[in-house]
Amino acid sequence: MKTVAIVFHSGYGNTAKVAAAVAEGAHAVAGVTVRLLALTPEQITAGRWQDDALMAELSAADAIIFGAPTYMGMVSGVFKCFADATAGIWFQMGWKDKIAGGFTSSAYTSGDKVMTLHYLATLAAQLRMVWVGPAAPPSNLTGDEQDLDRNGYYIGIGAVGNVREDLGLPSAGDLRTAALYGQRIAEVTLRWQAAPLNA
Amino acid sequence: MKTVAIVFHSGYGNTAKVAAAVAEGAHAVAGVTVRLLALTPEQITAGRWQDDALMAELSAADAIIFGAPTYMGMVSGVFKCFADATAGIWFQMGWKDKIAGGFTSSAYTSGDKVMTLHYLATLAAQLRMVWVGPAAPPSNLTGDEQDLDRNGYYIGIGAVGNVREDLGLPSAGDLRTAALYGQRIAEVTLRWQAAPLNA
Amino acid sequence: MKTVAIVFHSGYGNTAKVAAAVAEGAHAVAGVTVRLLALTPEQITAGRWQDDALMAELSAADAIIFGAPTYMGMVSGVFKCFADATAGIWFQMGWKDKIAGGFTSSAYTSGDKVMTLHYLATLAAQLRMVWVGPAAPPSNLTGDEQDLDRNGYYIGIGAVGNVREDLGLPSAGDLRTAALYGQRIAEVTLRWQAAPLNA
Amino acid sequence: MKTVAIVFHSGYGNTAKVAAAVAEGAHAVAGVTVRLLALTPEQITAGRWQDDALMAELSAADAIIFGAPTYMGMVSGVFKCFADATAGIWFQMGWKDKIAGGFTSSAYTSGDKVMTLHYLATLAAQLRMVWVGPAAPPSNLTGDEQDLDRNGYYIGIGAVGNVREDLGLPSAGDLRTAALYGQRIAEVTLRWQAAPLNA
Repeated sequence: MKTVAIVFHSGYGNTAKVAAAVAEGAHAVAGVTVRLLALTPEQITAGRWQDDALMAELSAADAIIFGAPTYMGMVSGVFKCFADATAGIWFQMGWKDKIAGGFTSSAYTSGDKVMTLHYLATLAAQLRMVWVGPAAPPSNLTGDEQDLDRNGYYIGIGAVGNVREDLGLPSAGDLRTAALYGQRIAEVTLRWQAAPLNA
Repeated sequence: MKTVAIVFHSGYGNTAKVAAAVAEGAHAVAGVTVRLLALTPEQITAGRWQDDALMAELSAADAIIFGAPTYMGMVSGVFKCFADATAGIWFQMGWKDKIAGGFTSSAYTSGDKVMTLHYLATLAAQLRMVWVGPAAPPSNLTGDEQDLDRNGYYIGIGAVGNVREDLGLPSAGDLRTAALYGQRIAEVTLRWQAAPLNA
Repeated sequence: MKTVAIVFHSGYGNTAKVAAAVAEGAHAVAGVTVRLLALTPEQITAGRWQDDALMAELSAADAIIFGAPTYMGMVSGVFKCFADATAGIWFQMGWKDKIAGGFTSSAYTSGDKVMTLHYLATLAAQLRMVWVGPAAPPSNLTGDEQDLDRNGYYIGIGAVGNVREDLGLPSAGDLRTAALYGQRIAEVTLRWQAAPLNA
Repeated sequence: MKTVAIVFHSGYGNTAKVAAAVAEGAHAVAGVTVRLLALTPEQITAGRWQDDALMAELSAADAIIFGAPTYMGMVSGVFKCFADATAGIWFQMGWKDKIAGGFTSSAYTSGDKVMTLHYLATLAAQLRMVWVGPAAPPSNLTGDEQDLDRNGYYIGIGAVGNVREDLGLPSAGDLRTAALYGQRIAEVTLRWQAAPLNA
């Protein structure tokens, strides 16, 4: 049994919906256990994030998928405080060779979500993790809200969140793209873990 | 009279439409002359871009707006060959304190256009130019194709180009956003040039 | 009299040294008042940064220079919590057309400081500010620690902080580069403010 | 036998030295064949890169490591023309699940090499490849030119090239970091290829 952990912050519930879709996709893969772990403001005291139990779960996982809303052009402050708390893990190379991935959401179709996703890949790289992006086929750009990958995010998942109630976002297509991503990360983790390094 | 130069590459005509809209917006500002300068494959020999007359026009301008399609996650190769040819200008600081801006287009609403725009800002920074982004009010996200800034690009203009004929892109809203950007760059250039440094 | 505000977070004192150097450079320009404003963990409660007096000072300034250490590949969590708190200002376009700049420090000569600086430029762009990078002449790469711009940062200032006491960092050259940047931002602010928009 | 292809452009010979070091590191791993493939200006006609034999070698490889000098803040124009030529492969998902990595060199210790490396990761992500960064232990920052990872590049390899003859760059430490990266990519490729997806 391999474990995929999804660690995310959600301010208004949209990123949580994407996280749930990613979890559902990973959960559907036989041989994979999914842990859905929420970052909360209460874990932060005087600018320092701490939750030893949550961090232990991440250290025990075979893959970690990072999720955060894009606020003012980057991961939320809550997520960043968590990221700062991984400095010791970096220095010890404690998460070396874990599989990594990432997702974000915000109100605009673009809106600097690419900056957030590149940051998540940067964080994973410093932690010596192996980054896996989505692999849905390129959208056929029909404009249909059921479309996979309709906004064209390659380095991770960029979902369009809900600002106005009547828009009903994230779209069915965005959530399905997220679920396929969860499935991909789970499958890649099984493959990667099937053969030990220097086998 | 101040001059705003728009130097761009367009592979399939979409970026050219955005360039024309930017030009139109700048042209509407009294006291500003606009130069629309196209980069073409023919200016490249064995990987080196050269067009001394075009480069002289840029060096004479008060502001330069860079435009390129996003191909495979970045400015097109044709644009990059042009950018490489500015190395001597960097070293001489020949474009120091010119106003700079940038735009791109591609088929997806996101599709790594943000990477392209950050590159254009990077190029401008190395050339010691002053970067000016768009300043349209935040979109109200109605989803209407007349909307300004409906995709949420902040560092420059990211228009959605036409892949399928029937989609009729770039949208009226994207082109109007581009025109407002041209107007803004023109107004900023007049303001910036009104008072010499160390006045 | 024009005001340049420097708002920064420093965890171990290195970024504070760079901030002081930037302030000194700006202060040396006649007609400019400098405000050096520190972000602290105590301003954060349950993940939300708040300090109304500090925010009012920023809103009153003609230029704002953002500074943060690079932790795990990005601005510190403390700085990001502050950035999140500017969302209302973005939506009201309250800082539109203020001059902006940025600096960072970390222990490595590279170490993803470029990612931090691009984020600061992204934040400024969303706030509709005008970004101004450093303009020291290109380094002659002698390797001398007195060198200006010896690491080649263009979009902002990337200083190398002190990890080991005996290394005595930031270097004299890095601090002088920072001071010249403060001077440049001050001069640009005077020039920019000398002529009102639509003059 | 698994194949690691290294496809690179070098303008002045520095990136070629880094490529050779990466190749040497990969070559030392039993069970791995290395192909060192140079991009040249002669492969470009009217802005379009074409070399069917080289592209066929890449398509046959199990891993592709991309290398380019950083010119004016990004991969060289020659490399970008090559990247543009992979659009058809993207659309067909022809390189899906190949292992990917990247390296760059330029004259400054920072100098926007991080932008280049993030672009190489972006290109790999669009091509649905799996990105693997370096995994040398964090530098102890002695300043010694033998140091591994002395500049702190995480997403790929950023070597400091030679501008002045007497500086003797890239340093021994940079080249050894590059060789360890080649070794890592080779080992990861063997591990990844040992178990088929959906095994």
